[in-house]
This record gives sequence, C-alpha cells and structure tokens, in this order.
Amino acid sequence: MFKDLVLKCRSYRRFYEDVAIDNGTLRELVDLARCSASATNRQPLKYIISSSREKNAIIFSCLHWAMALKTWPGPDEGERPAGYVIILGDKEISTGVGVDHGIAAQTILLGAVEKGLGGCMLGAVDRDKLRQLLDIQVKYEILLVIALGKPKEKVIMETMQPADSFNYWRDKDEGHHVPKRKLNDIIIAEL
Amino acid sequence: MFKDLVLKCRSYRRFYEDVAIDNGTLRELVDLARCSASATNRQPLKYIISSSREKNAIIFSCLHWAMALKTWPGPDEGERPAGYVIILGDKEISTGVGVDHGIAAQTILLGAVEKGLGGCMLGAVDRDKLRQLLDIQVKYEILLVIALGKPKEKVIMETMQPADSFNYWRDKDEGHHVPKRKLNDIIIAEL
Repeated sequence: MFKDLVLKCRSYRRFYEDVAIDNGTLRELVDLARCSASATNRQPLKYIISSSREKNAIIFSCLHWAMALKTWPGPDEGERPAGYVIILGDKEISTGVGVDHGIAAQTILLGAVEKGLGGCMLGAVDRDKLRQLLDIQVKYEILLVIALGKPKEKVIMETMQPADSFNYWRDKDEGHHVPKRKLNDIIIAEL
Repeated sequence: MFKDLVLKCRSYRRFYEDVAIDNGTLRELVDLARCSASATNRQPLKYIISSSREKNAIIFSCLHWAMALKTWPGPDEGERPAGYVIILGDKEISTGVGVDHGIAAQTILLGAVEKGLGGCMLGAVDRDKLRQLLDIQVKYEILLVIALGKPKEKVIMETMQPADSFNYWRDKDEGHHVPKRKLNDIIIAEL
C-alpha cells in the first residue's frame, strides 16, 4: 500500500552514518524525480549527488538542522547523512521553478523509504558557502538539500489540536514527536 | 515497486467522466498529503474537495488546460475530471508555504494512481473567479487545483535531447507525448 510508504516517510535527521549509500542508488532516486511532473514540462531542475565522506562533510557544514529544537545543533558525528541530493534550478531554462522541487523532493524521499533509507528536506542552507565550496555555477539556484541515510531515530506522528503548537519535540528517550493537524481541520469544504 | 507507481503517474487531462469519484476517496488522498512533510511542520495547507457534477462544472470553468497545446481548449464534455482537490494556503498560519503544495500534490497524485485514478496539477487558474464562485475566504491563497478521474488517454514519455523542445505534443491518434530530459543531462555532478 502506498499509504504505508507515506507513513514510513518521516523527516529523519539522525542516521547510521556507517551504512553507506552509493551514487548508483542516488541516481535511481533522481531518476524517479526525472519521471515526475514539471510545470509546463520545462524541467529546470538539475542535481548534484554526493556519497563520499569528504564531500558529505562539506555539504553538512552548510546545513542548519531542525529549527524547532533550539538546543540541538544537528546530528553528531556517526549519525550524519551518508548521502545527499542537492536540487538546483537551472535559471537558463526557467527563472521560476514553481513547485517542481517539492514534487521532486517528495518523490526522492518516498523512493528512499522503499530502499530502507530515509531523509529530510533542508531549506535552511548556507547557500553562498555551499556554492563556493562545491563550485556551483551562478546559473544554478540552490533550492533544497535532501539528506539521506539509514534512519537511526524513532519519529512519532501525533494528533494536533487546533490550539496546539505545530512544533515537533523530543522526549527523554530521544523519540521525535511530530504533531499533525487532523483531517477535519484541513478540509474546509466538501462539495 | 514505487517506480511503477511513478511511471504510471503521468499528467492526465482526459477522463471517463462518468466514472464517479466520491468524497471519501478524495478524503483518503488528502490524508496522504496530511501525513507528509511540511516546512518547519507548520502545515499551512487547507483543502476543498469536490465530486459533485454541479461544483465540478464551476471549478472546470476556472481552469486553463495544457498551455503547449495551442489548438486544444481542454477536455470535452464527457471527458472532464470527476473530482477535484483544491489546495489552499492558510495565510493566518503562514504567509509562505514554500514547496508544501508540491509535496502534497505529488503525494495525492501518486495515491490516486494506486486507486486506478490519475490527474493533473493545474496552476493556470482564474483565481478571482474561483474564489468568488466557491466563496473562498480571503485568508486562503489558492495555490493549485488537482483534477482527478479515471484516465482516458495514453501518455507516452520520451527521451529528450538537450536541443529538443520540452513541449509535449499529440499524435494523430491523440496519444500524448512528453519529452523528458535524460538522467545524465540533469545530474551535473557526482561527488
């Protein structure tokens, strides 16, 4: 069932870093995105994939993790992502990518879950630093970074009441709790 | 395999209109989106679902179809969508939805394919007209309309060469051809 895949597709931020991902696997994930919808079929998205320790460390140094967890600076050594997909927008093809990168990122993460992996979309990226360190041409806009690996955390989805905070939080056993609005709170009309 | 679902998940614009979709099915699809990622978990997306003939006709009157097919005004009577999911952004929750609606729309369409349905994301919407006709409050930004139904067209994905047009086109038998860039043309670096 597709729903099982969706339910397993949580945002994971801690990984078994020693479980490697090879670029062949990352290529397969990007291929899923390649076969997905793009506004007016323009397909402005380009990708950088990384699975080497050295380059992963460079990418990691440009990321900001889990804004809602004020006291958590991000995953420790040994729990960091084993691979990355950086989604770029090619401005020579289109200056507006619409939601193409959302479509692509979700497709990549769902594909990763099927492979026993998991990950997280990161929008809080030090883009200037990443561009400089990876020598990314100016014609490419840095849209999103997807961190990937074998998840090493328990993510618990919970029911959110309208007055509740949407912030995720961690319990004393490091379980990661994510409140989600109820279906009846997000469907405003049935016609 | 998830890839099979992705490959079946084409943008469909012609449907067996008499194959009804009920709101229960549309609720299940929105629930898949509900369980998916949202930037900082803010979850600003709200939804209107429609499966009634009368309301479907109203929504249809606000849509512009397949910009690249200059001579095709959109699906004829009898081939129109049997249901819609309208994705809104609740500005009281967030003024910027990021790519949440891309994530949601792709998840909904993949879920639809599993149910033997299919559809298309439509961004070319007469938003003022839709807001007026469906009495959508100002606090909701109209982001995307997803048209759904049982597909009544053959969509053929093809390999695009870098110099080719990205425009989709129809053959004399009404087959809908969609050129997609090659994997090696979209992955610009493997690190």
